[in-house]
Amino acid sequence: MPTLLILTRHADTYRRLIEAARLPDLAIVEHESSAVDVVLGEPSQIRGLLASLPSLRWVQSTWAGVEPLLDRSLRRDYTLTNARGVFGGLMSEYVFGYLIAHERLIFDKRAAQQAGRWDPTPPGTLRGRQIGLLGVGTIGAALARTAKHFGMRVKGYTRASEDCADVDQYFHGDDLARFAADLDYLVSVMPNTSATRHLVDAALLAALPPRAVLVNPGRGTVVDEAALADALQSGRLAGAVLDVFQQEPLPADHVFWRTPNVIITSHTAALSIPADIAPVFIDNYKRWSAGDALKYVVDFERGY
Amino acid sequence: MPTLLILTRHADTYRRLIEAARLPDLAIVEHESSAVDVVLGEPSQIRGLLASLPSLRWVQSTWAGVEPLLDRSLRRDYTLTNARGVFGGLMSEYVFGYLIAHERLIFDKRAAQQAGRWDPTPPGTLRGRQIGLLGVGTIGAALARTAKHFGMRVKGYTRASEDCADVDQYFHGDDLARFAADLDYLVSVMPNTSATRHLVDAALLAALPPRAVLVNPGRGTVVDEAALADALQSGRLAGAVLDVFQQEPLPADHVFWRTPNVIITSHTAALSIPADIAPVFIDNYKRWSAGDALKYVVDFERGY
Repeated sequence: MPTLLILTRHADTYRRLIEAARLPDLAIVEHESSAVDVVLGEPSQIRGLLASLPSLRWVQSTWAGVEPLLDRSLRRDYTLTNARGVFGGLMSEYVFGYLIAHERLIFDKRAAQQAGRWDPTPPGTLRGRQIGLLGVGTIGAALARTAKHFGMRVKGYTRASEDCADVDQYFHGDDLARFAADLDYLVSVMPNTSATRHLVDAALLAALPPRAVLVNPGRGTVVDEAALADALQSGRLAGAVLDVFQQEPLPADHVFWRTPNVIITSHTAALSIPADIAPVFIDNYKRWSAGDALKYVVDFERGY
Repeated sequence: MPTLLILTRHADTYRRLIEAARLPDLAIVEHESSAVDVVLGEPSQIRGLLASLPSLRWVQSTWAGVEPLLDRSLRRDYTLTNARGVFGGLMSEYVFGYLIAHERLIFDKRAAQQAGRWDPTPPGTLRGRQIGLLGVGTIGAALARTAKHFGMRVKGYTRASEDCADVDQYFHGDDLARFAADLDYLVSVMPNTSATRHLVDAALLAALPPRAVLVNPGRGTVVDEAALADALQSGRLAGAVLDVFQQEPLPADHVFWRTPNVIITSHTAALSIPADIAPVFIDNYKRWSAGDALKYVVDFERGY
C-alpha cells in the first residue's frame, strides 16, 4: 500500500483533510521509514530526510518555492511537484493592499489621526497607473486580472510566453529598460533560479521613474539588495514593499531596517493554507494512483 | 444662448474640459447674473447663490451628496442632477484597501518593523469573508463586484431593489438583525435622507459579531456616533473605518479621536475628480439641449 509521510507544521490538519477525501489504498505515517514512497510537506523539513527514504518516488511540496530540494548534492531520483494555482488570490490581496495603501497615503493619514489632525489631503488612485509584472505565471496572471479590475495598465516581462489576456504589453530578454521606463509599480513574482538572480539590479532600478514603487512578494534572490537600498536612500525610487529577502529572518543589522520608504512584511504575503494545498495533493494523488502525469512537476534544472 | 456658471474649486479645469468638448451654443461665465440658466458645481457653493439666479433651470452637482440644496427653505423650481456612476472605482479602492489592511494587520506589521522586529504573524484573507452592503446603488454594485473578485460572500440591504447579480442575498425593511448576524464587514453607502438617519444604531451594532468592522464612506448621519463609540470602547465591535461624520471637520474634542480601533480618513474616500465629472455634465448638457430627459435627476423629497 502507498505510504504517505506528512512533514509540515500543520500535519494534523493535512491528515484530517486527506482522510476526509477517503483516498483508496493510502497509509499515512508520522515518521520516516523504508515503506514511505510519498511525502507531502515543506521543502525545508523534507531536505534532511531525503537520505532516509529509500522507497521515495514522489514529493508534493506545500510551498511554491522548492529551493531547499534543488541543491545539486541532493538526490533527484523522485518526482517533485510544487503548489501552484492557489496563491493568486492571497498575492493579489497582498500586492493591491499595499498599492492602495501607497496611493491612499494610509500611513500618513494614520499619523495625522494620531496627532489629532483632520487631514483632507487628496489621495491618489490606481486607475490609469501602470504596473509591470516580472513573471506572468499563475500568480502573475492573477495579479494582472486584479490590476485590470482596478483600471490599471499592465506590462508583463516573461521568458517567452504571451498568453495572459490581462497583460497589455509583453517584454522579453534584454528589453528590461523599455519595460521599466514608465512604470508606477514594479512587482516581482519570479521564482528563484540562476536566471532570475539579481534581475532587479542597479540598471533596472535606474530605468524606473523616481515615482515608482517596487513590490517583491516572490523571492529575495531576484533583488540586488545593496542596489535597492542605494536607490531608496538617494530618492531615485519612491518606495519598496518587501516580503522576501536574501536571508530570512532579515538580520538585525540589515540596511533595510533603517532605509527610508521600505515596508518589511516578514515572508507572510502568501502562506500555504492547508485547505488550499490539500486539494492539490489529493488531485495529484489520484493521478499518481491511476498512473497519469502529475500536475506542477518541477524541473530540477530549471528550478520551478 | 445658454449660460453656464461654474462654481467649484476646480473651475479652471472644468472650463478647459468643457471647452474641449465644443458644445454648441454655450457661454461659460464666472459670476452669477440674470443670464445664468445652468450651474455646475459643489452644492455648498451653489446654496448661497440660489436666490441670485433668476433664470436658473438646471444645476449639475459635482458631488454625489446634495444635502446643502435640500433644505426646505430653498427654492426647488429647477432640475437638480447629481454625480453618479463615477465613484465606484474610488470607493472600491478605499473600502478594499482598508479591508485588506485589516486582514493583513498592516498597521501591526508596520509597528513591528519600526521596532526592528521580524513579524511572521500569519495574516488573514478576504476570501470566504462576508460583507454586508447598506445600500446597493451604483457604488454598492461596484463594491459587490470587487468583493466577488476577492472571493467574498455579499449580502445587500436595500429598500426594495434586488438587481445586482454580485449580491448573494438581499434584505429589506425590518430585517436588519438577520442581515447583520454573520457579517465580517458592514459597509454603509447610504445617502443622507430622513429614512437613513441613524440606520446604524445601537441595535444594528449589537447584531453584528464582535469580529466585525464597520466601514462608512457614505454619509455621517447614517451612523449613531455615540452608539458606535460605545460599541468600540466596550469591545463589542472590532473596528470602524470612518470617512464621514455628523460634523466635518470632526471636532477636536470628538470621542472618535480617542476611541480604540477607529480609523479616520477625513472625507477623502471618493473625491470628485474633474476628469470624471465633466463627462457627466457634458452628456447631460447634450440631453438638455436636445430636450431629452437628464440622467441622475435628484428627487428633492427623497433626497437622492
